Amino acid sequence: MRRCYFDHVAVNPMHPKVLDAMMPYFKDNFGNPLSVYDLGMTAREAIEKAREQVAGLINAKPSTVVFTSSGAEANNFALRGIAIASQNKGKHVIVSKVEHHSILNSARFLEKSGFVVTYLPVDNKGVVDPETVKSSITKETVLISVTHASSEIGSIEPIREIAQIAKERGIAMHADGVATCGNIPVDVKDLGVDLLSMAAHQFYGPKGAGALYVREGLRIVPLIYGGIQEGGRRAGTENVPAIVGMGEAAGLAAKEMPVRMEHCRQLRDALIGGVLKMPNVYLTGHNELRLPHHASFVVEFIEGEAMILMLSMKGILSASGSACSSRALKSSPVLLSLGVPSALAQGSIVFSLGMDNSMEDVNYFLEEFPQVVKKLRDMSPFAKGWGPGGDGESEKSRTAEGGQCYTGG
Amino acid sequence: MRRCYFDHVAVNPMHPKVLDAMMPYFKDNFGNPLSVYDLGMTAREAIEKAREQVAGLINAKPSTVVFTSSGAEANNFALRGIAIASQNKGKHVIVSKVEHHSILNSARFLEKSGFVVTYLPVDNKGVVDPETVKSSITKETVLISVTHASSEIGSIEPIREIAQIAKERGIAMHADGVATCGNIPVDVKDLGVDLLSMAAHQFYGPKGAGALYVREGLRIVPLIYGGIQEGGRRAGTENVPAIVGMGEAAGLAAKEMPVRMEHCRQLRDALIGGVLKMPNVYLTGHNELRLPHHASFVVEFIEGEAMILMLSMKGILSASGSACSSRALKSSPVLLSLGVPSALAQGSIVFSLGMDNSMEDVNYFLEEFPQVVKKLRDMSPFAKGWGPGGDGESEKSRTAEGGQCYTGG
Repeated sequence: MRRCYFDHVAVNPMHPKVLDAMMPYFKDNFGNPLSVYDLGMTAREAIEKAREQVAGLINAKPSTVVFTSSGAEANNFALRGIAIASQNKGKHVIVSKVEHHSILNSARFLEKSGFVVTYLPVDNKGVVDPETVKSSITKETVLISVTHASSEIGSIEPIREIAQIAKERGIAMHADGVATCGNIPVDVKDLGVDLLSMAAHQFYGPKGAGALYVREGLRIVPLIYGGIQEGGRRAGTENVPAIVGMGEAAGLAAKEMPVRMEHCRQLRDALIGGVLKMPNVYLTGHNELRLPHHASFVVEFIEGEAMILMLSMKGILSASGSACSSRALKSSPVLLSLGVPSALAQGSIVFSLGMDNSMEDVNYFLEEFPQVVKKLRDMSPFAKGWGPGGDGESEKSRTAEGGQCYTGG
Repeated sequence: MRRCYFDHVAVNPMHPKVLDAMMPYFKDNFGNPLSVYDLGMTAREAIEKAREQVAGLINAKPSTVVFTSSGAEANNFALRGIAIASQNKGKHVIVSKVEHHSILNSARFLEKSGFVVTYLPVDNKGVVDPETVKSSITKETVLISVTHASSEIGSIEPIREIAQIAKERGIAMHADGVATCGNIPVDVKDLGVDLLSMAAHQFYGPKGAGALYVREGLRIVPLIYGGIQEGGRRAGTENVPAIVGMGEAAGLAAKEMPVRMEHCRQLRDALIGGVLKMPNVYLTGHNELRLPHHASFVVEFIEGEAMILMLSMKGILSASGSACSSRALKSSPVLLSLGVPSALAQGSIVFSLGMDNSMEDVNYFLEEFPQVVKKLRDMSPFAKGWGPGGDGESEKSRTAEGGQCYTGG
């Protein structure tokens, strides 16, 4: 059976060169980077090289990159670190409704700690209107955090415009770049952000390595206190092999990005084009301003989990929304914020592509997916007209010319 | 040149079996544990197996083990997680003065957040008197945190007695077990603790993996918010290979502990015995109730850093106090809390042993160390009587019969 891994936003397989780069740091070069002797120095130099590589990926100075254990940690660090460092200035924070759980749940924690949080609405493609940011700002606002792109719907947000608004008002601007860093060009100076989160496993690096870009001169309070690692901004013995792997992955991503983007975009366009020929299936998120490796849909009358399980039996691996909530069995708040009705949001499915995929994978998928959907609709009490013998044609009325895109209730 | 790695409390080299266990999770089994298909399940099962192994090492239920990225994260999580969860009951926390920086600096963060912190004094061997714990408790006390053993001075604290006091008063009890877990028997039920921190790289496991034991039913607030990983207690894509490595290391430690302890104890006793024949050198910490792989000293008239650098040129790798503060160039607060004068505390040096060491290593060290100390004293303006031609005998007056132990100013 063919095996198609279409869940790269959950985690990427590691690039073989990344593991090769890590191996010496599991073996001979096992030292603690803070040790003053040669073994420590070797580890320290490896971390600093990785810091340069990661900084290079986002056009930043190496000293502005703080390594963390994950994108989630970077997001928590950004939100709470800035909120606490700035609380004497004000206690208002703005986030969007299409943020990852690590942002949304950090925001809720801040609310419990006496902050006021505004959750920015999005349009039916999941995009924040910079004007709503402007009108949400109060004298108390100390931080705006908007994802660079949602891994659930793939839409790319107007970070540059929002950062400009923040900058004019002296408000710190954070972008969650976990889904974008290493996958599309990310330039912190061009975007104008003060903080940006990254995760290595999103670009063929290892698990256990993330980073937060913190603009020079910006005051931030640590999330993890202890020793003097990471310039006193993040304590704990550095995970040297993972950091080295993240550096190597960043270097590779910077070099191979155009090829990777083009490869994925071709597969994605074929996949979206094929899926949208099916009736009562809608693209979620933006149809153009989206991650090149990302295709997400809602499928009417059936449940995402069921599709994923049936597809996995065909060797096709996909996700229903964010991996971090894939087993939480709730309607995705991101989809609800687009105006997708709760029942339809249950039929969410996300396909994310990578360098290990080929057009043959997509063609195989496009043969199998309609059968899976038909089988599930045949079993579904909600799919009237999709029962045994039904061909579904009667439901085709919502098919838009040239492809379907969910455009709101 | 012989190479003697005597800095196992900074970081252990990995056990080869640990890396072997991790490797498949860098390659074929790269899935995200939250994914519902087979790749996800394989990763999930690997984590749950590791959880059982780590739980087995401390006699706990698997469900009480929360994986973190480091011991420092576990310590931050414990202190802030319990303090915030309990703040409606009271805002007083007790820690000892011989804690790791990840505890002390978390405590300072709590002070800034409106908590009152009592820093327990220790005797001249670095041991907390349970009676001082009793007298420090107020109606507001919600948490007591005492290290199981300090990695700087090796002394083992009376955790069982302190936990009993905490339990009688309904106060949560945390022990920092980073230096003890995997090195000496640690049984959370026997100790009676509610929380216990661990770090895999202290027992031949990988960097990037730690854990916090959280007693069943104890309410704790996460440090890292986000997805539903670790039962909602610690978000972020799990570092599967590192967790698998920690599990394997825990399993090996549980099995090999008596052999490892005996091996290290013999080397340590020989090392301490040899060093204490040198004049004006004092053991720090307890001479009996100490980690079996740990020997720490203060050497009069010279600086720890200089000794470490000269020893490293002989292939002998050691530390001056905690690795996390080894480059901070301050007098160790732990040594100061024992009553060691600031000048003498500068001459701190720590040797920590492991399975890669042999008696030949110790003998080689015992030949080299006196020469290093003599050479440095010859250069030191503080070492009167140690100048060229001096033999130092005149300074021998503080040598106690049967070995020296620093017993206070």
